[in-house]
Order: sequence, then C-alpha cells, then structure tokens
Amino acid sequence: MITLSHCIDLDRRDELAPLREQFSLPENTIYLDGNSLGAQPKAALKRAQQIIEHEWGTDLIQSWNKAGWFQRPLTLGNELAPLIGAAQDEVAITDSTSVNLFKAVAAALHIQKQNPATAAKRVIVTERSNFPTDIYILEGINHFLGQSYEIRLVDSPEALYQAIDADVAVVLLTHVNYRTGYMLDMPALTAHAHQHQALIIWDLCHSAGAVPVDLHAAHADFAVGCTYKYLNAGPGAPAFIWVPKKHQAQFLQPLTGWWAHRSPFAMQPSFAAAGDIRGALCGTQPMISLSLVACGLDVFKQTTMEKIRAKSLALSDLFIQLLEQYCGSHPLQLETPLEHERRGSQISIAHPHGYAVMQALIARGVIGDYREPHIMRFGFTPLYTSYQDVWKAVHILADILDHKKYDANLEKNAVT
Amino acid sequence: MITLSHCIDLDRRDELAPLREQFSLPENTIYLDGNSLGAQPKAALKRAQQIIEHEWGTDLIQSWNKAGWFQRPLTLGNELAPLIGAAQDEVAITDSTSVNLFKAVAAALHIQKQNPATAAKRVIVTERSNFPTDIYILEGINHFLGQSYEIRLVDSPEALYQAIDADVAVVLLTHVNYRTGYMLDMPALTAHAHQHQALIIWDLCHSAGAVPVDLHAAHADFAVGCTYKYLNAGPGAPAFIWVPKKHQAQFLQPLTGWWAHRSPFAMQPSFAAAGDIRGALCGTQPMISLSLVACGLDVFKQTTMEKIRAKSLALSDLFIQLLEQYCGSHPLQLETPLEHERRGSQISIAHPHGYAVMQALIARGVIGDYREPHIMRFGFTPLYTSYQDVWKAVHILADILDHKKYDANLEKNAVT
Repeated sequence: MITLSHCIDLDRRDELAPLREQFSLPENTIYLDGNSLGAQPKAALKRAQQIIEHEWGTDLIQSWNKAGWFQRPLTLGNELAPLIGAAQDEVAITDSTSVNLFKAVAAALHIQKQNPATAAKRVIVTERSNFPTDIYILEGINHFLGQSYEIRLVDSPEALYQAIDADVAVVLLTHVNYRTGYMLDMPALTAHAHQHQALIIWDLCHSAGAVPVDLHAAHADFAVGCTYKYLNAGPGAPAFIWVPKKHQAQFLQPLTGWWAHRSPFAMQPSFAAAGDIRGALCGTQPMISLSLVACGLDVFKQTTMEKIRAKSLALSDLFIQLLEQYCGSHPLQLETPLEHERRGSQISIAHPHGYAVMQALIARGVIGDYREPHIMRFGFTPLYTSYQDVWKAVHILADILDHKKYDANLEKNAVT
Repeated sequence: MITLSHCIDLDRRDELAPLREQFSLPENTIYLDGNSLGAQPKAALKRAQQIIEHEWGTDLIQSWNKAGWFQRPLTLGNELAPLIGAAQDEVAITDSTSVNLFKAVAAALHIQKQNPATAAKRVIVTERSNFPTDIYILEGINHFLGQSYEIRLVDSPEALYQAIDADVAVVLLTHVNYRTGYMLDMPALTAHAHQHQALIIWDLCHSAGAVPVDLHAAHADFAVGCTYKYLNAGPGAPAFIWVPKKHQAQFLQPLTGWWAHRSPFAMQPSFAAAGDIRGALCGTQPMISLSLVACGLDVFKQTTMEKIRAKSLALSDLFIQLLEQYCGSHPLQLETPLEHERRGSQISIAHPHGYAVMQALIARGVIGDYREPHIMRFGFTPLYTSYQDVWKAVHILADILDHKKYDANLEKNAVT
C-alpha cells in the first residue's frame, strides 16, 4: 500500500524538487498537462519586461545587432542543442513545428532526388497514429508535387520495419506518440531506414526535455520539435529544427526567405543559400516569444536529462501503481507501454467516459487533457511535478470514478 | 524660410499629436525608423504581463479556449482588416511575411492551374527592386516545381504594364517599395492584371498603417504584410495574410498544418480544408508576440487612415522642403517621388557616403537606416513623429554634411 506519507518522503529525497520553485504554478492545482503547455518559469516576466522596455522600447531598431536579435534563433538553438544530442550550429529555433516539418520533408525529398541511387524512390512513410499535422504536411507537399509520392501510413510501431523498404525516400516519425506516449526506438529505426537508403526525420515534440535524445548517436538525418511543452518556452513559442552538418550544404527547401540568404543585407535579387544552419530559417521571428525560450532552457542547465528521465519514470511508475491500488475496479485501459524503454513522459488511459471524467478532474483542479477516442492524458514533468501531486491526482480520480462524479452525457467542447 | 518655431506651431495644431503619449520613445532621440520597426506602445508591457502571469501562468492550458488563444490570429485579423480595406473573416495574423507570401503564391498558382483558361500560364511577374524575400520565395516555389515557371523581373513601375501580358499567371507586387518609398497604383495594376487573367498578390509591408489601402475597392486577389513596422506590433510580431471570401474555398497551399483543418481536434489522419480564412493558418502561433499586435492596433482605432495620411504627407513634404533649405548644396538625390500619389510614408535620399552619414546621424540621435546602394531612409510615422522632429533631424543632417562630420572611409557593418 503506497501512502501519501510515502510520497511526501519521496519528494523530500528528490534532488530535482527545488527546481519547482522556479516555476509559477497556480494554487490548488495539480498540473499534469506540461506535455501540452509547459508551466511558466518565473523568470519569464522579467525577461519580457527587459525585451519590451529596453530592447524594443529604448534601443529600438538597433537591437537587431546590439541585442543580437538576428542571431537569436541560432544562439538559442545552440542552448537547446545539448538536450537532443545535437552539435553547435545545427539547431535553429524558428517558425512553427508544422512549418519546420515542411522544410525538413521538402529538403529530404530534394536530397533524395539529387542522388541517382535514390532519385526514383516515391514512398514516404509515417504512422497513421502520428500527430495529424505531420501527416497533413506530407499531404500538402505531395499535393503540391502533383501527387507523385505514395504516403504510406503504418498502423503499428512493429509494422514500421516492414513498411520501410527499398521504395522509401523519406521516413517521418514522431519519437513519442502524442496520444499513447509510446516511444519508438530511434537508433534501430534510423539504422533500418538507412539500410534502405531512406532519410529519416524525427519529430521530437513530446521528447525534447522529456526523455534523453541523442540525435547524433542515432545517426538521424533531421529533427523538428516544439519548445512550449516540456521545454516551458511559453504558449506557441517558436519551434526548433535540427539540420546536422552532414546535410547542411544540401538543405534546400522552398521557404527560401531572406534569413536563409548568404548575405541577407546585400539585398540581392537572387537567392544564394547560406549553406549552413541558416538554411533552416525563413523570415523575421517573433522576438518576444522567441526570447522567452531562454527562460525554460535555463532551468534545464541546472540538472541533466538523465536525472529528469529517472524522475519521470519514477513518477509515471508511481501513477500506474496508484491506479492499480485505487482504481483497479474501474474500466481503465493503460495505453502507454509499461516497458520503460518504450515509454515517454506521459501516461494515457482510456475510459469509456474519458472526456467527462477529465472534465470532472479539471473541475477538481487536476489538469490533464483529453484526446480522441476516450483517452485521458497525464503528463509528468519532473522539473515541477511532485510525487505528492501524483498521489493526490489518483486520489481525486478514484473519488470521481467510485462515486460517478462525472456527467456521462456531457457533450464535447473544443478540446485542447 | 521654415523655422523651428513654425514647426512647433504645426505640432500645436496637430490633431494627432496627443497620440505620441501612448508610445514609449527614448529620450534625446528622433526616431525616423518606424518603417522598419515601429515604436513600443506603452500598453505593451502590461498586456505582456497579463498574458504571462494570468493566461499562461495561472490558466495554463485552459487559455487556448478560455482566453481565446485559438481564435486570436483571426480576432486580431478582424481588428486589422479595416486598415487595409478587408472584410471581416478575411485576415489572419500568423507566421512571417515570407511564409505568408509562400502560401499566397502557391495558392494563386494552384487556382490558375485549376482553371482551363489559365492552366497553361507559366510566368510570374514581380519587380527586380522588390524586397528580396519576395523574389526568393518565388524562386523557392519555382525550384520546388521543377523550374516550370519563368520569373519575370521588371525594372521599373512603368514597365509593369507591358510585362503583365497573356502569359502571366501571377503578379506579386509590393505596394510601397522598401528602398525608394515609391507607391504603385494598386487599382490600375490590379485591373491590368485581371484584363490578362492574372491573379495579383499585394505585399503591404510598407503600406499597412502607413497609407490608406482598400483591397476590396481595388478588387485585389491576395495580400500579405507585416505588423511590426507602421502597425507597431513589436519586433518580429506575426505577419498578416488577406484571403478574400471570393478565393477562400479554393485557397489550397502546401503548408497544410492542423490549424487549417476543418476539425483540428478530431485528429483525423487526412487533411480536410476548412474552406474559410483558416485555410491561411498552419501551426501553433507565438501567443505572446501575437497578442501584442492588439496594442498597436488600439492606437489606430483612435483616428483614421485619412488623417494619418494627411499628416504623413505633411511630414515628408516638410522634410523635402527643409532638405532644400538646409542641405541644397550637398550631393543628395531624392529617391522618393515628389508626387503624393506615388509616395509612401518614407523619404529615401542617396548620398555618395550614405552609409557613413547615416552612422553619424545615428550617433547624434537621429535614427534612420541605410539600404544599398547609398540610400538613407527616413520613415515618417504620424502617430509619434512630430514636425519638430523633422526640423531637428534636417538641422543635424545639415551640420554633419556642412562640416563633413562623418567618416567617409567607414566600413559597413551588418545593417538593419
């Protein structure tokens, strides 16, 4: 029997526990949705004030050089790089994940077309259960290219190996599934793709800052991801894109804005690629939202991804154990793998009235979210989630289920 | 002889003068670069604080619905619409100008291909002197489409009429030239393009908030523009895109992110276009930078574009008159048309040592900027530029030129 006092004791012994103080969290709330929107670092407001009052208000146009606005997508990219196993000058923080996906897919297809050995390949592989925007972007590119590719949607992680065959030009996979929390085997799938001369793009939206990622160790080709989930960069903060040095010279994609030009201020009437990580840039970036990415990253510098991972697994293991202990009699279906190697930093559980139960939880201050069909998602963010939080969340869930304190007829609203 | 006291008198009688108080401007500075980065509305800091502390910090994930984050690109688009002659539900504030240009050009090419009467057209027209990103984006799209189009770069505004002929699919023009301040005749060029069954896209980066624009009166097809210049939305704030209702159902472009889906939260594995202005969206937007767009727009609500235009012309006329009066003996070349109908809200003057002279001006607190070759740009932003500012700026310029207080051998740095 796991008790609250046991969880309090775990918190007392938790080396990461003091980091919670660096976040502003609402009172009477157990926030288990950092996998969707990370909490606010307390440093964010002061940083925003500095940018608005000083960089924008006082220095105005001069801040492009003086404050390093022009370089900021790359300087912040360099700060993020260690969290995903990227080298310096390989990461840009810019645009949205969807736009960055577009760049990576277009560039990968272009590279394959340039190589006589791969030019004829006409299949793009992804998972049917991938986050929809990944699939939509593939559809958008394919439509633009006259439907000249087959988009092969694969129905299970196991089936990926067979689906990635000699016809495949590009593979686009999300490392940790947004719905189930299933974590794919990045090194194995990358090696498999390369055996078939396919290029592989990893979507790290649910990985960066959540699980250790080593893109170089896996020999991956490209990666994208968002900063506003586990990286706590703020709502809709610009996303990142990783282009390793091995591909930078050939990284050509259609969003050839002036920030990707070799000499943007020469104002030349013809595009000339920078040939480095700037090739992943397009146009002017939202400097206030972009700058706050630093506040989230600063917290990560105080610990390691290994320590974060250890606590993440401890939190999600505890959650599962407490579910068994307190909610074992209810029709809950664990959608996330028990196996550590295959688990991200969230736990997804299906319940026939998942939507209604989640609304009841939210009304009681336990903030998770809902995804079709029937799935309640609970994110565990070791920088600010405590063991007590987990105990209290399950305790409230048990109360809601035991006493049917949810409206089984509740109509679904727009869900986030 | 125009005196400082005459200018002080003009300020006293200026109906817009009180609006200057709503902006935070640095002391001892004459800011004539609002055409590059608009000044900071004093309301911006408080608004940022509300978003960071309350919407992000306290309400967290619930703000997507509760605070209207999901709708914000469109609600703010509706606020901007009247400034450019757009109707409600036709403007989105999202992504960068470069990315929005890409969407508009791709969608326009697609529409032309669908129409048997225009499907064979293979020419895209723009000006060689256009802001480079506009040309680069055309090149990027064309490269992606296997170089199947000719990009026709036109060398003068007058030559546009002949260049837009029966072979032209799409015309992309910047209403006010970034370098010279020359304003094209939007209604006439739009009518000419339509006579030849070409679709026309207007880049309003140097028009929105600077000069009256009436997209519907001109029967234009698409428009894009940025919010961080005359609209004072903050450094790199998201740009806008205008898709009139007449084209919304056919507005298909390759950046088909989930925000453009008919039911984004149904999480369907196949894209289904919303068929309305949401078709111009792609992915999640930088909510803090985006939200501050409202602070800039709020100032515009207190006056009219006609009053702004009248003061803009009065300011730039005064600048020209004072240049003649005080700097007539120096080799200054006016690059901006004297004709009001063809003039934006900036004055560009060439000088053999334009770069060095501009650096000397900046050192003396007169902030303009420099563009290749030899051009000094001075932006006039009626919401916060005074007649006295203009007098003082020219007075300082005259002193610099009269006494050669600039370093003719100065090497060029990265320029903004």
